[in-house]
Amino acid sequence: MIVVMRNGATEAQIKDVCSMIESCGLEVHLSQGKERTIIGLVGDTRKVQEDRVKSYAGVNEILRVVKPYKLANRVFQPEDTVIEVDGVKIGGNNFTLMAGPCAIESREQLFRAAEEVKKSGAKVLRGSAYKPRTSPYSFQGLGEEGLKLLAEAKQKFGLVVETEVMDTRQVDLVAKYVDIVRVGTRNMQNFDLLKEVGKLNKPVILKRGMSATIKEWLMAAEYIMSEGNKEVILCERGIRTFETETRNSLDMCSIPMIKQLSHLPIIVDPSHSTGKRELVKPMSLASLAAGAHGLIIEVHPCPQEALCDGNQSLTPEMFEDIMVMIRKMAPLMDMVL
Amino acid sequence: MIVVMRNGATEAQIKDVCSMIESCGLEVHLSQGKERTIIGLVGDTRKVQEDRVKSYAGVNEILRVVKPYKLANRVFQPEDTVIEVDGVKIGGNNFTLMAGPCAIESREQLFRAAEEVKKSGAKVLRGSAYKPRTSPYSFQGLGEEGLKLLAEAKQKFGLVVETEVMDTRQVDLVAKYVDIVRVGTRNMQNFDLLKEVGKLNKPVILKRGMSATIKEWLMAAEYIMSEGNKEVILCERGIRTFETETRNSLDMCSIPMIKQLSHLPIIVDPSHSTGKRELVKPMSLASLAAGAHGLIIEVHPCPQEALCDGNQSLTPEMFEDIMVMIRKMAPLMDMVL
Amino acid sequence: MIVVMRNGATEAQIKDVCSMIESCGLEVHLSQGKERTIIGLVGDTRKVQEDRVKSYAGVNEILRVVKPYKLANRVFQPEDTVIEVDGVKIGGNNFTLMAGPCAIESREQLFRAAEEVKKSGAKVLRGSAYKPRTSPYSFQGLGEEGLKLLAEAKQKFGLVVETEVMDTRQVDLVAKYVDIVRVGTRNMQNFDLLKEVGKLNKPVILKRGMSATIKEWLMAAEYIMSEGNKEVILCERGIRTFETETRNSLDMCSIPMIKQLSHLPIIVDPSHSTGKRELVKPMSLASLAAGAHGLIIEVHPCPQEALCDGNQSLTPEMFEDIMVMIRKMAPLMDMVL
Amino acid sequence: MIVVMRNGATEAQIKDVCSMIESCGLEVHLSQGKERTIIGLVGDTRKVQEDRVKSYAGVNEILRVVKPYKLANRVFQPEDTVIEVDGVKIGGNNFTLMAGPCAIESREQLFRAAEEVKKSGAKVLRGSAYKPRTSPYSFQGLGEEGLKLLAEAKQKFGLVVETEVMDTRQVDLVAKYVDIVRVGTRNMQNFDLLKEVGKLNKPVILKRGMSATIKEWLMAAEYIMSEGNKEVILCERGIRTFETETRNSLDMCSIPMIKQLSHLPIIVDPSHSTGKRELVKPMSLASLAAGAHGLIIEVHPCPQEALCDGNQSLTPEMFEDIMVMIRKMAPLMDMVL
Repeated sequence: MIVVMRNGATEAQIKDVCSMIESCGLEVHLSQGKERTIIGLVGDTRKVQEDRVKSYAGVNEILRVVKPYKLANRVFQPEDTVIEVDGVKIGGNNFTLMAGPCAIESREQLFRAAEEVKKSGAKVLRGSAYKPRTSPYSFQGLGEEGLKLLAEAKQKFGLVVETEVMDTRQVDLVAKYVDIVRVGTRNMQNFDLLKEVGKLNKPVILKRGMSATIKEWLMAAEYIMSEGNKEVILCERGIRTFETETRNSLDMCSIPMIKQLSHLPIIVDPSHSTGKRELVKPMSLASLAAGAHGLIIEVHPCPQEALCDGNQSLTPEMFEDIMVMIRKMAPLMDMVL
Repeated sequence: MIVVMRNGATEAQIKDVCSMIESCGLEVHLSQGKERTIIGLVGDTRKVQEDRVKSYAGVNEILRVVKPYKLANRVFQPEDTVIEVDGVKIGGNNFTLMAGPCAIESREQLFRAAEEVKKSGAKVLRGSAYKPRTSPYSFQGLGEEGLKLLAEAKQKFGLVVETEVMDTRQVDLVAKYVDIVRVGTRNMQNFDLLKEVGKLNKPVILKRGMSATIKEWLMAAEYIMSEGNKEVILCERGIRTFETETRNSLDMCSIPMIKQLSHLPIIVDPSHSTGKRELVKPMSLASLAAGAHGLIIEVHPCPQEALCDGNQSLTPEMFEDIMVMIRKMAPLMDMVL
Repeated sequence: MIVVMRNGATEAQIKDVCSMIESCGLEVHLSQGKERTIIGLVGDTRKVQEDRVKSYAGVNEILRVVKPYKLANRVFQPEDTVIEVDGVKIGGNNFTLMAGPCAIESREQLFRAAEEVKKSGAKVLRGSAYKPRTSPYSFQGLGEEGLKLLAEAKQKFGLVVETEVMDTRQVDLVAKYVDIVRVGTRNMQNFDLLKEVGKLNKPVILKRGMSATIKEWLMAAEYIMSEGNKEVILCERGIRTFETETRNSLDMCSIPMIKQLSHLPIIVDPSHSTGKRELVKPMSLASLAAGAHGLIIEVHPCPQEALCDGNQSLTPEMFEDIMVMIRKMAPLMDMVL
Repeated sequence: MIVVMRNGATEAQIKDVCSMIESCGLEVHLSQGKERTIIGLVGDTRKVQEDRVKSYAGVNEILRVVKPYKLANRVFQPEDTVIEVDGVKIGGNNFTLMAGPCAIESREQLFRAAEEVKKSGAKVLRGSAYKPRTSPYSFQGLGEEGLKLLAEAKQKFGLVVETEVMDTRQVDLVAKYVDIVRVGTRNMQNFDLLKEVGKLNKPVILKRGMSATIKEWLMAAEYIMSEGNKEVILCERGIRTFETETRNSLDMCSIPMIKQLSHLPIIVDPSHSTGKRELVKPMSLASLAAGAHGLIIEVHPCPQEALCDGNQSLTPEMFEDIMVMIRKMAPLMDMVL
């Protein structure tokens, strides 16, 4: 950590900052430039409250050198994290397909989707029983009934199942029924929820917040990991920008950036990030080419009857069409389906 | 609501969409342009699932004419909502000052802050007992002990007290101790939390999400109101943009926009939006000039010792310095302090 | 075009708007909803000034149905535009590699780069003689001397050559020496420059503005095309967002969106969009997988000695490493190198 | 400037970077932390090409301490720049009103606007003869005829006149007729244009680019100033964000930030930033309260007949209504009208 003093900071101000830093058990390296004085901190700077330093008189800014996340940091674990659930591997050189309806609507809908996506090669069945909806007047999900249908589908089709958890009070219930829990984009910084899923013994898909920086996203993963749960799967789902032609802007660069900064697996949601069915195929292939560890795609047996997000859901035929290409491209990328 | 069909949409596709709309109890107005067919919907279009319509073959886009919020909409309540808590009024032509420390750290700190801000004219004491922190390694707040201190401060100083609630499990506890609950920016779309505070009989400060549009913000207010709680106070606290010189970009235009679209009171947080102590005064005065109904400002008896956000906290002297100007400017704006 | 009147607009206001529209030679379709009156315009609405309509009393908003671009619009030219320069094809099922140094620094540097990129399969040599630099104190390019070197390189290596044009006064000079001119991101809405390159008989690479919407980008292409030059090559180069880990956020979704909206070729610049050398390979492969028609990549014989953007330039070896993968992947995508 | 080496950078890599820095005439301060090595540069780091340093093997990132602008930097000129044109002062404690039509349409329109805004207290008449329009099919301005009308209006009404210059070829012509030239938002990084207006002996209004950071904006001012013209007036006109309710988001925080970083005057354009007539008044008052040195407002004698941007133009009555408040508020802010 480096403290840049204001132009014109007094000797006394500089001394105050140095004393405070030393009182935290760190060493100080002072460097007096022509225009500015710079104070370097040596030691584990994660102990120092950045805000506190900034509040000292004469301090201009703080420059961070060391990343604030530790457990999620590739520096401290160079090899990829590979998560295994019921024989399905996520991370490393595995390319894992997760697919299914946005919301679980009925046994028939979920089972038809499960059958189709399984046939095309998906390993994980997605489906939400609790739905975060912008409007209080929209369909909010089937709740526990939906969870039961997921557990049934798991038995019947031999798929790993995942679903979203939105509220700390639901965590235990949800975990009872599914293999993987998902924290949605609007809850990426719902810290109480992160702590609760951090106590689970199940993998967590952590979607990137709509306007979360990569650093904040990894700090959210750190929250989960610091509670003991090391099985975090990051999911890029598009960020909010000024562009309105697509629902969000899929930040494709985040894939190689995350792989450089962290050892955690990263998958992509091409359905929510684009909001347009016809963009799902090109974005799926691009994600594989960019180095992602998998995809989570919305597939609905009959998108026109979907109770939510029908316009971005694929038909089973469209999903199979993508899979045809993925089967050809994965070996080129040294990825195992 | 208007449905724009794709160029080249077939008669059958157009008919399908029309039938579906009519089955929802709405009338259809068809308009065949040179390049496009447009379908107008007449009736209460809030009943129609936008997503569902979009999923029909041949549909290009949906244009909304009527705002999706009803309870928060000024169209249905032309006069300003004025909230009253223990004689303190918020909304209408009242300009209400809320101030206090970011986090409650100790009785001494809270009481000194309370005494000072009261003296300068604040009516509401702010202070967080539960803190949403980006890092799991940062100070997370005093919890219930902090709430008790707030309740004590209320008695001792005759101030209305408010605090943040982060988790559905805390709602009842928090409501027991404070007059006003606050939903933070990271929880603006934590829909379960919105529903819970919507059941309270206390005003709710709803901070704008970091990347929430004005429409989404009003929809979040609608969530609270649709549960029965009509006392929502909107709080602009800056949005996330590309600019890095300030922590967020205070969206000053949102003040008159909200006042046009909604009858709810809107206040501004100049501390979190800027992240810089020296910007708090100009942004406070600008908020008053732009038509805000109040301010929520961080004041700490000794910012250098603050456990969080010290760099944006004002000293009591700085707060009084702002109040001097506000006392002069408010009458010009026809606002009552 | 649809005009949505304000709730409570008077009969007289509605009549005024209708008369004005009819005076522009368009038909009016009136639809009186419960809350709002909507006026539909039938005819070629490109003739109507949107701003003018908005300025009428009682008008709430304008919704556009027809895209404002015509020449760039796929509706009016369903088949892909394929541009041919000296036997090199751009567009359709061709995947065209453009590579070379950011700035031309010397004959030796340019020629070594040209030789290497040619060997690896590039068809077009890029290189800037005029450099838009954020700081007036940075290297500004070799000017005409650089153009001459490009022309020499063309002869010597049999490569098509391209360079940036920054100023209307340079257009003729630049066009004398190169095969393709490039309009940079900061000039995407330099309308006088667009008009000048629109008069050329040479293809124009039009980089997307840093914060330009897809619509504005296509309107900029329309400017060039409306002057007679139909050979526009769109170039996605990343957009400005809140993310700071990468220089820009490569908007990968824009590739399939552009291909849907327009017949023009679209290529990607993975060097400037990421600003990081190690991200160029994954973004290059992803662009191909997403359906781009080519790439423009910075390659420098010795990046450490580059006078600008050295940190994003590839060595010839790194470029060849990408080409190895592209040669394998292109056939899968039905693209011809 | 501080160079942060990668975790695991070799001794040789560190030595290479140090040698290069020393060869630029700077001193090196080496600091070996537990996880990282940090190299501090002492001396005038404006001489060092940041890109070049970044391209060295082993370099992770560069942290800048000193701002890259010098002439625009308040550190080197603590007192405010006050510009004087024909007795009209801009900067310091002067609050200067500039008003007039968006585009000059006719003598009658311009003169009526001039008469009205003068009566209300405007000192500068704005009006564009050359118009940057998103669409090539929109009205592009009257050209030199418009400039002549401005010069006439200057004589007749005793107003200082200003207009936009879009193209390097127009600079001399424009400067012949007007007192102040304006560089528009789309040309903020049209570096050739900046250099040309930098050679003028007239003040330049430099509008902030739609997605320009404060730093880039000041660097653009530096371009003008480095050519000799020190009379730059910065103009905040809103930035592009995800919010669509307003045309742009007026970045009110930029006013005090600019005043802290630079000695140049800063004014606000509340018309273009909001795009909505009804927001002009609250944003005008807020700008004054935030510390701006003036406003540039669109006023049209008959907004409904405006050939461009009619929906954001004020009538003379609306302008006078704002001025009534400004006259009351300015003395409170210690500003002279």
